[in-house]
Amino acid sequence: MSRLPTFEPEEYADRLKRVRGAMAERDLDVLVAADPSNMAWLTGYDGWSFYTDQAVVVTHDDLPVYWGRHMDAQGAKRTVWMDHDHIVGYHDDWVQATDRHAYQHLAAWLADRGHGQARIGVELDNYYYSAACHAHLGDGLPGSDLVDATGLVNWQRTVKSPTELGYIRKAAQLVTQMHEVVRERIRPGLRKSSLVADIMHAGIFGFDGPDGFGGDYPAIVPLVPSGVDASAAHLTWDDRPFEPDTLTFFEVAGCYRRYHAPLSRSVYLGTPPPEVRRAEEALLAGVAAGIDAARAGSRACDVANALHDELAAAGIHREGRCGYPIGLSYPPDWGERTISLRANDQTVLEPDMTFHFMPGLWTDDWGLEITESIRITADGPAEVLAGVPRELVVVDT
Amino acid sequence: MSRLPTFEPEEYADRLKRVRGAMAERDLDVLVAADPSNMAWLTGYDGWSFYTDQAVVVTHDDLPVYWGRHMDAQGAKRTVWMDHDHIVGYHDDWVQATDRHAYQHLAAWLADRGHGQARIGVELDNYYYSAACHAHLGDGLPGSDLVDATGLVNWQRTVKSPTELGYIRKAAQLVTQMHEVVRERIRPGLRKSSLVADIMHAGIFGFDGPDGFGGDYPAIVPLVPSGVDASAAHLTWDDRPFEPDTLTFFEVAGCYRRYHAPLSRSVYLGTPPPEVRRAEEALLAGVAAGIDAARAGSRACDVANALHDELAAAGIHREGRCGYPIGLSYPPDWGERTISLRANDQTVLEPDMTFHFMPGLWTDDWGLEITESIRITADGPAEVLAGVPRELVVVDT
Repeated sequence: MSRLPTFEPEEYADRLKRVRGAMAERDLDVLVAADPSNMAWLTGYDGWSFYTDQAVVVTHDDLPVYWGRHMDAQGAKRTVWMDHDHIVGYHDDWVQATDRHAYQHLAAWLADRGHGQARIGVELDNYYYSAACHAHLGDGLPGSDLVDATGLVNWQRTVKSPTELGYIRKAAQLVTQMHEVVRERIRPGLRKSSLVADIMHAGIFGFDGPDGFGGDYPAIVPLVPSGVDASAAHLTWDDRPFEPDTLTFFEVAGCYRRYHAPLSRSVYLGTPPPEVRRAEEALLAGVAAGIDAARAGSRACDVANALHDELAAAGIHREGRCGYPIGLSYPPDWGERTISLRANDQTVLEPDMTFHFMPGLWTDDWGLEITESIRITADGPAEVLAGVPRELVVVDT
Repeated sequence: MSRLPTFEPEEYADRLKRVRGAMAERDLDVLVAADPSNMAWLTGYDGWSFYTDQAVVVTHDDLPVYWGRHMDAQGAKRTVWMDHDHIVGYHDDWVQATDRHAYQHLAAWLADRGHGQARIGVELDNYYYSAACHAHLGDGLPGSDLVDATGLVNWQRTVKSPTELGYIRKAAQLVTQMHEVVRERIRPGLRKSSLVADIMHAGIFGFDGPDGFGGDYPAIVPLVPSGVDASAAHLTWDDRPFEPDTLTFFEVAGCYRRYHAPLSRSVYLGTPPPEVRRAEEALLAGVAAGIDAARAGSRACDVANALHDELAAAGIHREGRCGYPIGLSYPPDWGERTISLRANDQTVLEPDMTFHFMPGLWTDDWGLEITESIRITADGPAEVLAGVPRELVVVDT
């Protein structure tokens, strides 16, 4: 059973070319990319191995190199497009050891390859590049210059290829099915964990039949807080029952071959109070306005302002981000950490950028989320990728 | 709907006392703990918010403080045992911004609290303390001394309390049920994603009825590679069918209130070749020998050596880690990153330490995993926590 190639060689070649261009602009000889999504985007590497040190090394005159734990180098042999000469594994004694650090191994390897005096880009602000990694790399390469290249690769990922869009569309089909499960099964007295089990099942089981497909694990688990818990945006679930007269939001994503389509909807068990209905009405208008404003040539802030203007017209003051780019991701975040849909982000939108447009409202007493995964089109408003009714789901109790 | 307290106040007080003792040993005035599992263990904080900067600040003369994004400070109000005066939220403009960094906010807050000249412990080698976090904290506190305190809290977590053991036992019930699903449903032609969906459902749905309970999300998703893919330890799944005459291992964990019980079993679809049967026989002997060697007063290396001696007797050379402590965890790792069951780790085992004893065998052509979650007992061999038949599962095709 061999693994399917995720992208054609030409697409990887194009990505590498763009990254090298960005490296050249910053006079970088070498890039050490430790962000698993950047590693996968550049090489195809896929595995839950990011809890130990690993990276992809990009230079101007050789193919990228996967560097990681020996047993994960085996995984690289199964997943990357480069030949086995471009896969370097380190011994298990370097793993979570107290007497040595894997980045000492990488530093020695880089020095051995002639990069002891190089200008080396590192992802200084990434989960998988700890302060200790940075210290050991610098200590092991005293003649080199370590330069912050956080986001260098991420920014090359904002515009999606046709193949990537195909994967995101499948993820959108999955998230549509996940929300169908919410609407069909939620009721007071049902254990929250039971519904979450069904939601996750729908996202991974996917669709049966010859044209069917299964899902991958999203980079964030379902966020499903109820009542006052929903005043906090990032609580997960427990095993107590849904209670009547509460508002719950469901922020979940479909994922296909590591590509994501997140989407939130909210459910009221009982008769929604007027303040929730007013917030819903304003939010629906804001979502529509934001989608209409999300056009090629417009700026990220235009989307946020369109949303916030509609909310302000209804007397609701909202600030903070209302979205971020989506695509290939690994835990702990399904965003790409580049553009932010917020009032101070002037980035110009381009066709085939994809975003989670994420206008949640959180008060001290409840939270309401109605969001969409969208694609910027060549002309006209953004395309809504999933097919989930946008209104507050109301369940009679 | 209020959230259930996870532990009694006395247990949190005891944990804080132990951490302060370890801080005193290293002359630390302040500890900035950014590891989500350390944060949760100290304060009860629980949320999928670790993709933005957050930490718990421990001092000797005040309660711990949760510091994080404003919307996650709301989550802290719902989950931590401290009062709201010990919860600090920063504005959304600090989130994934290119013109500022959240650790500048933390540095200013620490300086404001009189810690501008302090000796401050930081978790230098943690996923959630990037090189950029460290640089900004240091720049913002030029008079302070940042000291590596990686693992300081983790080492206090190795011996589990009765309440913690209760949670791990529930996680073990969940993982037992997850492996029942594997045994009952696996067959050639079944999509791998479909079986994974069922496995995850079993772990989160849990058990119905008045004494039933539901599961939480494990810190690692199911690892289920087949055939040559299983030569790599950390590949996840795709949506192609299981094929006859292949060996697949299932490394999965049950999780209850963030406490884990991981367990691996292997399945052969068809008639296992003699080399796989020989490896199974040796591995079963090695697992039994390791469990017998895992006793209070013995050392971590004794467990590894007992396993490796049995394997060597069967002509199998194995090296590398064969286990790690388990308990409270968040992605990307369900291990505690302290003790390693390996030949060079002399740590003495104590009663109520819990481990994933993890003796996988990976060749260039296949992988075989038969593992157990175990508890060190006061006298006698380790207690096996789950109840899953250990033998290779063979499915006639």
